[in-house]
Amino acid sequence: VSLARYREVGLKKIVTDVLERAGVARRHAQTVADSLIHADLRGVESHGVSRLPVYLKRIETGRIDYRREPVLTMQKGAVARLDGGNQLGAVAGQAAMEHALELARQYGTGLVGVCHSNHFGACSYYALKAVEQKMMLLVLSNAPKAIAPTGGIRPFFGTNPIAIGIPADTKPPFLLDMATSVTARGKIALAQKKGERIPVDWALDARGEPTTDPAEALQGTLLPIGGAKGYGLAMFVDIMCGLLTGGAAGPAVGSLYESDPAAQNVGHLFLAVDIQKFMPIEQFLKTFADYLRRIKAEPKRPGVEQIWIPGEMEWKKMRENKAQGIPLDPAIIAEVEELCRRYGVDMGQALCESSESFFDPKVSGTPPLS
Amino acid sequence: VSLARYREVGLKKIVTDVLERAGVARRHAQTVADSLIHADLRGVESHGVSRLPVYLKRIETGRIDYRREPVLTMQKGAVARLDGGNQLGAVAGQAAMEHALELARQYGTGLVGVCHSNHFGACSYYALKAVEQKMMLLVLSNAPKAIAPTGGIRPFFGTNPIAIGIPADTKPPFLLDMATSVTARGKIALAQKKGERIPVDWALDARGEPTTDPAEALQGTLLPIGGAKGYGLAMFVDIMCGLLTGGAAGPAVGSLYESDPAAQNVGHLFLAVDIQKFMPIEQFLKTFADYLRRIKAEPKRPGVEQIWIPGEMEWKKMRENKAQGIPLDPAIIAEVEELCRRYGVDMGQALCESSESFFDPKVSGTPPLS
Repeated sequence: VSLARYREVGLKKIVTDVLERAGVARRHAQTVADSLIHADLRGVESHGVSRLPVYLKRIETGRIDYRREPVLTMQKGAVARLDGGNQLGAVAGQAAMEHALELARQYGTGLVGVCHSNHFGACSYYALKAVEQKMMLLVLSNAPKAIAPTGGIRPFFGTNPIAIGIPADTKPPFLLDMATSVTARGKIALAQKKGERIPVDWALDARGEPTTDPAEALQGTLLPIGGAKGYGLAMFVDIMCGLLTGGAAGPAVGSLYESDPAAQNVGHLFLAVDIQKFMPIEQFLKTFADYLRRIKAEPKRPGVEQIWIPGEMEWKKMRENKAQGIPLDPAIIAEVEELCRRYGVDMGQALCESSESFFDPKVSGTPPLS
Repeated sequence: VSLARYREVGLKKIVTDVLERAGVARRHAQTVADSLIHADLRGVESHGVSRLPVYLKRIETGRIDYRREPVLTMQKGAVARLDGGNQLGAVAGQAAMEHALELARQYGTGLVGVCHSNHFGACSYYALKAVEQKMMLLVLSNAPKAIAPTGGIRPFFGTNPIAIGIPADTKPPFLLDMATSVTARGKIALAQKKGERIPVDWALDARGEPTTDPAEALQGTLLPIGGAKGYGLAMFVDIMCGLLTGGAAGPAVGSLYESDPAAQNVGHLFLAVDIQKFMPIEQFLKTFADYLRRIKAEPKRPGVEQIWIPGEMEWKKMRENKAQGIPLDPAIIAEVEELCRRYGVDMGQALCESSESFFDPKVSGTPPLS
């Protein structure tokens, strides 16, 4: 059964309207809507409008200071720190990303840490914005505890993602967005719901033993990628986002879904590089596109249809969803409809007509990779 | 059977003398010796004096331009590029690291790319130097092809390491040094020599199928950590070290052991951060030490004796080897002795007396973590 599809523009308007009616300044509401729909467009449902209900809940219960503005609390040369003021994470994220790009234009590189922030959506959102300005961006964020240190049994680090965007003279660009855990808790919960076992390298149970039982895994901890290597990377992300910024680190980062502590105190880090300081941008964009094409042309394993560039699958999905509308799960739609009713926003305006198609992805855009 | 042990200072002198007699400037010979013995002290034999014979071979056959000086070819604000001039890698690495630290002191962060370099030893060498100056350092290097893109069967990326050093008010500091592959080719070769099978997640055979046979694995490709995530990280390292610096990338990076291409054309990237721009350094060092102690105090899996901080095992080994001498494999010693004979250097001066102990690690140094 195929899911109902929704218009990108209509969905953004709905999310913006709901947030605005909940008290968020219009421009901030637009940023948050943009970041959530970015994820849905790319097929990353876990970071899309599925998060809107919990954002609203935290706004309504005063756990997000939606009237605050992020404040620049330190600026020295090419480094800066932004206090997110417990505002919606995407607001601080957007401001920090823009500041990092500005510093990079001036100094070649710019590093901006953010403390006292909240869940800021998909890291790829910021990386892609930078890429659109022909800049490189590294994005880190800490997150609520989920991963134990190697040898431990208790969650300490978040899934602490690392995202990197690098522009190329082709679409898609390089857009890596990865958790430092092998998988997300959401995928384990989904396996449980479906009555399936999980791979043995996903998680440990509460006693610290490997498990293929999703219920036991949810009582335990997620495993980092590459064993002690991923543990080291998760710790690095936590240090940069939590300790360097003077914010919260490790288990002190609050859950998005629990009410204690009241503030999540998430930290982020943005590192921008201005490629033009190294060579004419057109030269880099062309060289990098050739490099990506060479990788795609490498000989493949039996049964493999194509070699994907990081972010390419999501880019393909985005083109499809822009053309045909964004498919949303009925459970998510029901939650958004409930919010729309509460805030007097018409959800129906975003639903695609069954025969609707906005444009032909084949004739739009820039040269594809393959 | 226990291995003969060698004095740190004596070994450094021997390596320096051999390199100097081969024509390398004394200060550069000292840097290379320092980097190799650093690895042996930490028990990372693969990056220690075991590399000296191939360094010498490349010097003697004119594949390393040992008389050249690295040249700063770009300097704009907080970013710079160094041309390694095909000199020994550690020479360019040391210069780039120092320059990155200098830029970070001025701008808060400093990013220095290096092109036209060679094998530069263990990344941890540079990260530790920065930590000793209470600075953070990220070190990347590309390397000869070993890993296929996910879905591919032909080596394209090197094991492209990522190292990160972060100072703490305790020893050891945080010192992560990891390849983006699950393992090194050397470990597979060792399994072959011992007649052992290898874990199924280490490598693919030449047809792109998983294998536990080390001989088949050596004909194939190494697997990256975390599947497509490690592939993305290996590509990121290659882009930063190869494409951004204007140097060689992917399979164009030459092997250390083969003679074609003549120059390896390795690229590196150093990113330094001056913590003091964010807070008083003593505050960070103390907060970070507390954080590390909390991680070590986390509850452990059954059978786990302790939770290790990245770099802690190697630090412990270093203290042991500083106290008791560095144990070296007879096969490595035989090669070094051959070089000593050729260059008229007395190897015997470095051998420890059987009862020798240089100091008691328990009474030296700064407060241990545990």
